[in-house]
This record gives sequence, structure tokens and C-alpha cells, in this order.
Amino acid sequence: MKTVSESRAFGGVQGVYSHASEVTGCEMTFGLFLPEQAESEPVPLLWYLSGLTCTHENAMVKSGAQAWAAQHGLALVFPDTSPRGEGVANDDAFDLGQGAGFYVNATEKPWAPHFRMWDYVTEELPHLLFSAFPLEEERQGITGHSMGGHGALTIAMSFPGRFRSVSALAPIAHPSASDWGRKQFTAYLGGDEAKWAGHDATLLMRKRGFDGPILIDQGASDQFLDLLKPEALAEAMAARRQNAIFRMQKGYDHSYFFVSSFMEEHVAFHAAALYD
Amino acid sequence: MKTVSESRAFGGVQGVYSHASEVTGCEMTFGLFLPEQAESEPVPLLWYLSGLTCTHENAMVKSGAQAWAAQHGLALVFPDTSPRGEGVANDDAFDLGQGAGFYVNATEKPWAPHFRMWDYVTEELPHLLFSAFPLEEERQGITGHSMGGHGALTIAMSFPGRFRSVSALAPIAHPSASDWGRKQFTAYLGGDEAKWAGHDATLLMRKRGFDGPILIDQGASDQFLDLLKPEALAEAMAARRQNAIFRMQKGYDHSYFFVSSFMEEHVAFHAAALYD
Repeated sequence: MKTVSESRAFGGVQGVYSHASEVTGCEMTFGLFLPEQAESEPVPLLWYLSGLTCTHENAMVKSGAQAWAAQHGLALVFPDTSPRGEGVANDDAFDLGQGAGFYVNATEKPWAPHFRMWDYVTEELPHLLFSAFPLEEERQGITGHSMGGHGALTIAMSFPGRFRSVSALAPIAHPSASDWGRKQFTAYLGGDEAKWAGHDATLLMRKRGFDGPILIDQGASDQFLDLLKPEALAEAMAARRQNAIFRMQKGYDHSYFFVSSFMEEHVAFHAAALYD
Repeated sequence: MKTVSESRAFGGVQGVYSHASEVTGCEMTFGLFLPEQAESEPVPLLWYLSGLTCTHENAMVKSGAQAWAAQHGLALVFPDTSPRGEGVANDDAFDLGQGAGFYVNATEKPWAPHFRMWDYVTEELPHLLFSAFPLEEERQGITGHSMGGHGALTIAMSFPGRFRSVSALAPIAHPSASDWGRKQFTAYLGGDEAKWAGHDATLLMRKRGFDGPILIDQGASDQFLDLLKPEALAEAMAARRQNAIFRMQKGYDHSYFFVSSFMEEHVAFHAAALYD
């Protein structure tokens, strides 16, 4: 693992690290914020999964999450959203290929050899983080924005017991019924929709739910509401009697101004669950 | 004036606007955050001047200042750092020309016709802001980072009574004794150093000081300390008995992680002065 940069931030350290990934077969880069508390003891970890077109960097510099993580003594990890590099397949569209991994393991060509973000985020990167940094494996929360909200919700529901809390900002909530989902699942996973079900937050909510609290924020003026389909997830959570808060936020769009506006409350939500 | 974008942020609105500038002879873009309070009454205004290579956008998306401005009911304006466009002179170096206006009125070719950021920030843009938005002209503070800290300090000291408070993060503190200053002043203002003195915070502090409180933060691990010369300004402030706090922050570098780490305290500092 290589240290790309380390900057003091809010009393802790905002680092950027890269490593050769066996899972994705390329160099992967991630951001990790360690609060001051990590100098003396292991700290809880909050995962932040990013949306379409993002690298590890966008949320790291734009979400403002470090201010609140420092306050609560949480670490933050910002993984990349796809494999990268010249040897990695890509597409001209912004919502397929590099920057658009969708947190699945691709089985279809040309994506199959590298696009394995599910295994990267749920196996390889956790193993690396918990062996290299002072982080408490038994205290993890997960959040994300847009495609990253989709990743956070599907991963949290697929690994019962791993995460104490999950939240999402404007998640792609029902991808198998949306053009943000059908296109990518067809490309990465093939045409058999049965293989998509494990990657659809609404379907997972109907089937199994999450054994912990959920917080969802959605901007009412989001320009992508038709693609995100929050109503499907809201219905599924209510029907399951899921321990959850769903908030439709008047006037907010899909931008990082929306994300940063509610980041304090999301970090506080996770902190409450992690220190419970 | 054209509205480039408006996004709800922290209960208020983060807007981006552009206008044809008579002073710089080109289209200029700025960011303006209005807190929720501005819906019902005029609010105080905090100026944020940015550093080398920045546009209006960098601090707007990376400083985290809106969170704190919303809390205190302050507006924030993020001007660009230079004129822009194909008809505007430029240089291959990152620290001269577009993105590096240094908050002066250039008198030398090829910069003279467009590079008039002093008049833009102190005359034209204020006139536009106070006529178009619900802002209190009698309650203004000014801050900035690096080259923008230089701008904030020199402008605040040059317009007594206009700003109630001034702060800076890692300002270029003594440009006429630094390669971040001598090069640009020579290019923009010519070789007569007497013409530079009104644009050197240390020299202005020695000569007249500021009739209000000053807050300066400087990272002790800043990679540009030799160019910033904080010791000259610290000495001048102490020698004048200036009402000021100068803080050397252990471990922090020159990045926005440093800026965002101390933004809460800078906004609170200005709020205290503006509501005094």
C-alpha cells in the first residue's frame, strides 16, 4: 500500500492511499480520514460510497463529513467507484464503465475481469483497512450518495451483523425498475433479472430488511427523482415495519450542496448507533 | 446578471451568477450563499477571496463555510480570482495571469486592460451585490486563503470602516519580499516598488493597521511557508499592538483540509464582530 498524501484535518489525518487490488486487477485508490482519537485507540468506521462519475476524491473534498466525524471520533473511508486504468474496459456514457461500477461483480464481457466492486468493497478493502489502520471491525456503519446510496443499502442488507446502521442520500432505490440500473445490470450481470435482485434495495427490503436503523434523505427538487424511485423504497420500508426514517427534503437537488447540508445528521445518526 | 445555478444548501441557497464586467472587460462569475434568514431580511456579508489557481468554485465546494454561515445567518460571496477568457492575457505559470490576479489593478502590458481585480472586488462587485441581493452593506467581513488572504488583509486595511473584521488562512503575508509577490507585482504593476506597498499586508500593518479584530491561522507544516512569510506579519501586528490573534496550527499544510478545519472558527469570529 502506498501513501499518496496525508493532510492534517480537523485534528486528525485525511490520507489518500493506493494499492494493487487482486479483486479488480488494477491499482485502486481510497481516502481515509482518521480522527485524533485514532492516535490512542481503534475507532469506529463509517463507509461512504460515492455516486456516478466520482472517484475517491469527490466526497472527501466536498461532503464536509470530516468535521462531524472528528466531533464523534469516527473514521471515514471513501472508496473509488470502479476499477480504473488503460487496461480496464470503459464506455463513452457517464453511467457505465469507469466511474460507474454500481457495486456489483460483473459476469459479462468486457466488464467481467475488472468490474468486481462488490467484492472489493465488502472483502478486499475491509481486510486491508482493518489490518493496516486502528479501526474497530465490530463498529461499522455505511452511507452513500446516489449510486453509492444504492451500494450502501444493498451491502448493509446483504451482510447481516456487519453494519450497525445504514443511511443514504438520494439513493438509487429501485435500480431494476429504472434506467439507472437496468442498463448497467444488463451490461454487468446479463439479462437474467433473477441475478439482479440481490442488488436492488427495494427488493432486498421486501425480502429481508435490515437489522438496525436506517436513515434516508431525498431532495424534493432532485433532477433525477424519476430514476431514483424513492417511493418504491419508502413503501417497502413502511410495509416491512423497518426501523427507518425517510425524509423528503423540500427544495434540495441532487448536488453535493444537498449532501453536505445533511451530512452532520447522517454522521450523528451513525455515531449514535455505533456507540450504543 | 445571469443565474448559472441555484441549489438549496443548509436551508439557504448556494447560487452561481455571471455578469459582464466593465472593470475587467470580460464575463465574471461568482458564487453567493444566502442563508435562510435572507428570505425575510437583509443579512451581513462575509467575503471569501480565493488563492492561486482557484475560480469562484473551489472554496464554494471545498471550504465547508456554508454550514457555519447558515448557523450564524451570514451570506458568503466567492469571487473569481482573475479575469478569464480567450481575449484575456495569460501565462503558462500557475502563479501569473488567469487564476492569479493578486487583487491588484494591473498597469503594465499585457495585463493592464483586464487584470483589475482590485476595482472589481472593491467597487463593481459590491455595487452589484448590494443592489441585487438582500445584503447589509454596513455589516461586512472579509477573509481568504493564501493569495486570497493577501487580498482580504490588504483590502480591509485600505478601506477603513468598510469591514468590521478581517481574517486570513495562510495568507501571502509579505509579498514584496517573496517570490509570491515580487514576480507578480513586477508583471502587473511594474518595477517601481513604491507602487507595491499598498498591496503588502505587512507594510500596510506597519503603516496603518486595521480598526477592528484580525484572526490569522497558519499551518506549521505548510509547504509554502517560505513564500508566505507569516513571521513578518506576526511581528508587524505585535509591534503595532493590533487587535489580533495569530495562530500557528501544528501539523496543518496549505490544503483545503486546513481551510475547512478552521472555517467554523473564522465564520464565528466574523459573526461575533458583525453582530456586535
